[in-house]
Amino acid sequence: MSSRHEDLIVIDGLIVSDFGPEVFADMRRGGITAANCTCSVWEDFATTMRAVARWRRWFREHADLIAPIHTAADIRRVKAEGRTGIIHGWQNTSAIEDRLEYLELFHALGLRIVQLTYNTQNLVGSGCYESHDGGLSDFGREVLAEMNRLGILCDLSHVGSKTSEDAIRASTRRVAYSHCLPAALKAHPRNKTDAQLRFIAEHGGFVGVTMFPPFLARGPAATIEDYVDAIAHVIACVGEENVGIGTDFTQGYGRPFFDYITHDKGYGRKLTEFGEILNPEGIRTIGEFPNLTAAMERRGWSDRRIERVMGGNWLALLDDVWA
Amino acid sequence: MSSRHEDLIVIDGLIVSDFGPEVFADMRRGGITAANCTCSVWEDFATTMRAVARWRRWFREHADLIAPIHTAADIRRVKAEGRTGIIHGWQNTSAIEDRLEYLELFHALGLRIVQLTYNTQNLVGSGCYESHDGGLSDFGREVLAEMNRLGILCDLSHVGSKTSEDAIRASTRRVAYSHCLPAALKAHPRNKTDAQLRFIAEHGGFVGVTMFPPFLARGPAATIEDYVDAIAHVIACVGEENVGIGTDFTQGYGRPFFDYITHDKGYGRKLTEFGEILNPEGIRTIGEFPNLTAAMERRGWSDRRIERVMGGNWLALLDDVWA
Repeated sequence: MSSRHEDLIVIDGLIVSDFGPEVFADMRRGGITAANCTCSVWEDFATTMRAVARWRRWFREHADLIAPIHTAADIRRVKAEGRTGIIHGWQNTSAIEDRLEYLELFHALGLRIVQLTYNTQNLVGSGCYESHDGGLSDFGREVLAEMNRLGILCDLSHVGSKTSEDAIRASTRRVAYSHCLPAALKAHPRNKTDAQLRFIAEHGGFVGVTMFPPFLARGPAATIEDYVDAIAHVIACVGEENVGIGTDFTQGYGRPFFDYITHDKGYGRKLTEFGEILNPEGIRTIGEFPNLTAAMERRGWSDRRIERVMGGNWLALLDDVWA
Repeated sequence: MSSRHEDLIVIDGLIVSDFGPEVFADMRRGGITAANCTCSVWEDFATTMRAVARWRRWFREHADLIAPIHTAADIRRVKAEGRTGIIHGWQNTSAIEDRLEYLELFHALGLRIVQLTYNTQNLVGSGCYESHDGGLSDFGREVLAEMNRLGILCDLSHVGSKTSEDAIRASTRRVAYSHCLPAALKAHPRNKTDAQLRFIAEHGGFVGVTMFPPFLARGPAATIEDYVDAIAHVIACVGEENVGIGTDFTQGYGRPFFDYITHDKGYGRKLTEFGEILNPEGIRTIGEFPNLTAAMERRGWSDRRIERVMGGNWLALLDDVWA
């Protein structure tokens, strides 16, 4: 890896891979300092608790590769130790079922980033594939307030537009689209319009940029250059201090996983068809992450911009929200 | 009891009492032929299954007083047998959690009436105390379609106005407000405007009239005459062939129960304050049901109207929807 990349604090705002020693080793190859690792998508309380317990075992068994992240200081520490920090994150609020107080339990166990809804309506609000978005529910406002109290980052990537707007207005802490792409480059229910990107930034929010092929204009034919183009578009919308990486790596997963995440509640009606999932050439695997820094260098981006976008901005956001 | 009342098929569209032998005996005193007995309010799958199992035990232990109702023919049969028929009903869809296929399991166990939401937003839609009603969710449309397929009556009493309108339009079977009062007599989030009453009836729907004190203009000072006034108002709106009884008797319950039902999800934020719960003089208990027929007779209502409103209309509706 380039010495430039090696020195950076590199933070990936969203990885939902088939976690285990192979992925952990690839995170080290990729020079990932910390990543928001999805621990719950459609799952309920008990299943998510079992996932938390599995991470605890991995933290013991693979302590040479990974370590849990509870604070921004933990991120700086694992950087110095040469390990990858694992941020416990959710892409849904199904794991609290109908119990507000479960949030505090999961927070005590390390939960630090929570997306309010995943694709469809839940008790909190609506998702990006729902026909109609009625906005944040009253319970949803309580969930968000509890996240604000605890210091859990609110993620809105898969959330519906009205629910997102409600949450951006209601949150007393900065919120994020942890992994999204500009609708200006490809119209898609998961992509955000320039107006949406500007709106979240104007309210102190943050945008992580994904490279998930179904949301890229050139799909599986895209290269790492298309990804940097998308990041550049978001920077032009919201300013380089509000942008980060959120790859959405699904490394190690195949058809059953994509079927699970593209059906309502994991088994119901089909919400979208992804087509072929092949990450952009140059960054097909987590281990190729150094190529992203190199691609930014080829664009002539300043050291300051690269440092910010590759992880500095994420660190500042998390430092602020988790405080 | 008057011979008139004794001969009638008497159907109560909603009883949510502290069920057990005392209430069953009072149902017999009241000459109740059948009642929609609430089996789930905020409860999840397992808790509701345990409630179903408890009813099975009661059906064995109190077979002299009660019997399960699965068909309209069952209602006619228990009338002849001198027993009270128990219709398994829900006031929420929390019991299916996020599994559409659970509906068929509960239907096979006797579930025949389901209210889509209880007071607040759930996975299906919104409730009458929710700040904003975004309407029936996509999952909610699937739940309603499955209820239509199985022949489960859709109840909208505690459902939000937009979700109710969506459900009334989407349902292929007749739907009901099983227990509500006219907002024309008292403005309250739980009461229905004349326009709402007409709308459901114009779409083939049905209205059961409640006498729950917090929704009556005179509250705990009301008498059975106020109740008959409310029924008369609904008849004037929707026609005597679309109206029935839905008392909402909460017999045997005290403060803990009312706290449970007036807080979101049974424990969360306070949704409403009931004040004193004292049923209208003349019909304070289920056993006083014959007084309702007598009050209608004093009004000079025709035998045909009394027969219809006391149970004939409910029987025709259930016969149609459960077919």
